[in-house]
Amino acid sequence: MKRNTNYDNLEQSYLFSTIAKKVNEYKSNNPDKKIIRLGIGDVTKPLCPSVISALHKAVDEMSVQETFRGYGPEQGYDFLRTAIQNYYKKYNVDLELDEIFISDGAKSDLGNILDIFDKDNTVLVPDPVYPVYVDTNVMAGREVKFIDANGENGFLPLPDKSVKADLIYLCSPNNPTGAAYNREQLAKWVEYAHSNNAVILYDAAYEAFIEDEDIPHSIFEIEGAKTCAIEFCSLSKTAGFTGTRCGYTIVPNALGKLNKMWVRRQTTKFNGVPYIVQRGAEAVFTEEGQKEIMVNIDYYKRNAKIISDTLKELGIWHVGGKHSPYIWLKCPNNMKSWEFFDDLLNNAQIVGTPGAGFGRNGEGFFRLTSFGSYENTLEAMERFKSYSTSKLK
Amino acid sequence: MKRNTNYDNLEQSYLFSTIAKKVNEYKSNNPDKKIIRLGIGDVTKPLCPSVISALHKAVDEMSVQETFRGYGPEQGYDFLRTAIQNYYKKYNVDLELDEIFISDGAKSDLGNILDIFDKDNTVLVPDPVYPVYVDTNVMAGREVKFIDANGENGFLPLPDKSVKADLIYLCSPNNPTGAAYNREQLAKWVEYAHSNNAVILYDAAYEAFIEDEDIPHSIFEIEGAKTCAIEFCSLSKTAGFTGTRCGYTIVPNALGKLNKMWVRRQTTKFNGVPYIVQRGAEAVFTEEGQKEIMVNIDYYKRNAKIISDTLKELGIWHVGGKHSPYIWLKCPNNMKSWEFFDDLLNNAQIVGTPGAGFGRNGEGFFRLTSFGSYENTLEAMERFKSYSTSKLK
Repeated sequence: MKRNTNYDNLEQSYLFSTIAKKVNEYKSNNPDKKIIRLGIGDVTKPLCPSVISALHKAVDEMSVQETFRGYGPEQGYDFLRTAIQNYYKKYNVDLELDEIFISDGAKSDLGNILDIFDKDNTVLVPDPVYPVYVDTNVMAGREVKFIDANGENGFLPLPDKSVKADLIYLCSPNNPTGAAYNREQLAKWVEYAHSNNAVILYDAAYEAFIEDEDIPHSIFEIEGAKTCAIEFCSLSKTAGFTGTRCGYTIVPNALGKLNKMWVRRQTTKFNGVPYIVQRGAEAVFTEEGQKEIMVNIDYYKRNAKIISDTLKELGIWHVGGKHSPYIWLKCPNNMKSWEFFDDLLNNAQIVGTPGAGFGRNGEGFFRLTSFGSYENTLEAMERFKSYSTSKLK
Repeated sequence: MKRNTNYDNLEQSYLFSTIAKKVNEYKSNNPDKKIIRLGIGDVTKPLCPSVISALHKAVDEMSVQETFRGYGPEQGYDFLRTAIQNYYKKYNVDLELDEIFISDGAKSDLGNILDIFDKDNTVLVPDPVYPVYVDTNVMAGREVKFIDANGENGFLPLPDKSVKADLIYLCSPNNPTGAAYNREQLAKWVEYAHSNNAVILYDAAYEAFIEDEDIPHSIFEIEGAKTCAIEFCSLSKTAGFTGTRCGYTIVPNALGKLNKMWVRRQTTKFNGVPYIVQRGAEAVFTEEGQKEIMVNIDYYKRNAKIISDTLKELGIWHVGGKHSPYIWLKCPNNMKSWEFFDDLLNNAQIVGTPGAGFGRNGEGFFRLTSFGSYENTLEAMERFKSYSTSKLK
């Protein structure tokens, strides 16, 4: 038996374990200090009432012979696919039901989609990046090229026509930077994909945070995208489903054989999302559900604005904070990412995430998130101001 | 962009769609006839009360800030892994928690496990077979060899030392035949795997139906299996989870790097099973839960026995029916699988599954399942007797 030795080429990520170690050390040396964590990438608000009630109802159905559900369609139940089809209509995107695949989250399908592509494809990934894009390709032995996201392009790189690519990862609003492409910028990527006969793997997991008309919620709002893009979305950040697990993947029929190949992949290696969870997800797309989830999203957004406003006031360069739960800032005084992490922890007891952990271009940058409580976010920003004025001026 | 052209080598399976078409045709030509379906491979009994109550409780937890759960461990919560660890102790198998991975079902992990193996491995699969074993390997471009399961070996083939293999699929109790290996037979496979430096991918999805002491519930009951086997199990047939989706995969630490590779695969391409579902699964392993699921399993087993007893009475060769919800019979009068399908539908209005749909060696055989109702199973067997005496003698 031969192992897949591509796994040996994976870089070990010690980002979050190193953070945990440093925070624990600080805590044991300073037991009286209150630490505020603005590094978390997980939601904190509970599921909304419509979802809870739909989940209970579905559990009850599973307890009775007449309404019990066994195997469902691997691609998801039509009731949920129809709800998603209608959601896309809000953004003037018309989808066929058989283009919509219910998934157990964007992460799974972002990895699994690679099954339908040959090993011999060149992958283009922006740096800094959500590590899953790179790692899943390294596992398959594919060549990965990076495109620089940096302060100059506002962490929204545009295509370089001299670079050839077959598979292109885009995430907008972006993880980790929070930067979001507008219509015109995305259209350039669609044009580039066409001229390369490439497929864009578009991660729209944060679309529910978008505020402006000019920022597309879906890449399919861009003309021509259906012949060059697959879209991944998730209810994780939209509706607090990080522990409930439901998302969806759009594989247009216009992509030719890829749609039917994905059907074959899913029917062979997947058995669908739990019926109960699909009923909970359906409730997210009701009028009431949409209202309820927006209360939580607005809560996180208010935190993001507090952070962003503080940074503006202090004259600290950053992106994100609007259309996104993430704020990506340049470390003050030209500090390096980990240097700033230590300084902020020691002097303001705030925990964030060093940008260097997300790629080469993340060095010198830092990520804060809006998933904490309102009170803690306010307090953290007061501390940040004092820290800033005392230490940095 | 290049597609994965291995997909072009997949055989289309029309088994269940052809069955549906034939049954619908018969129905519209004979609207007054009552058809009894003994072809279904899906459970029909609702989830048991302990599971329902655990699911409701978990949904309630998700509605409150203090008990809400976001991202969980990709490998599953310790509460469920501990429950499974204890379940294995019943069969004298000691597992470490980090050898137990919670999955969304055996099918997913049986496909996904191939990620950690090189393309260049020879796969050995018994014929007839659960099509997933073959298809997932064809997708990856691997060479598949078949080993004959047939009437002579009771559909329990033993290793042929002249054949070299790197990955070996075994399913016991078997889908589709219902045949189950005893301890001595499995030990021969373990010995063969060692002598080939091969890994056995052991599908134990039907273990809960086992009755005799001599039939192992887990391959790890066999000495030496931990250094040559990965086991896949599921609550689908055990506890009616086909639409609720939870299973588990055991990757022993004694397999060397494979355990840590699987951790890396799962943390990169999977985000764990829903918290709610894991709480439901935990309830299956409580004393009360075990009692309740056995009521359903006994119900299915009673049906299986009725079928098996009828076949015995009629002198029809078959395996399964004990330790399994499946009965695999030789078509009477040397009929071919589809010939018998048509004859049985037309003369007794019973629907089964033609064995030819599961592989070359399935030709001339037929599968009946015990997932129907008791009343229908009884009636079907009465009809089968009349059919048999009038048509076959």
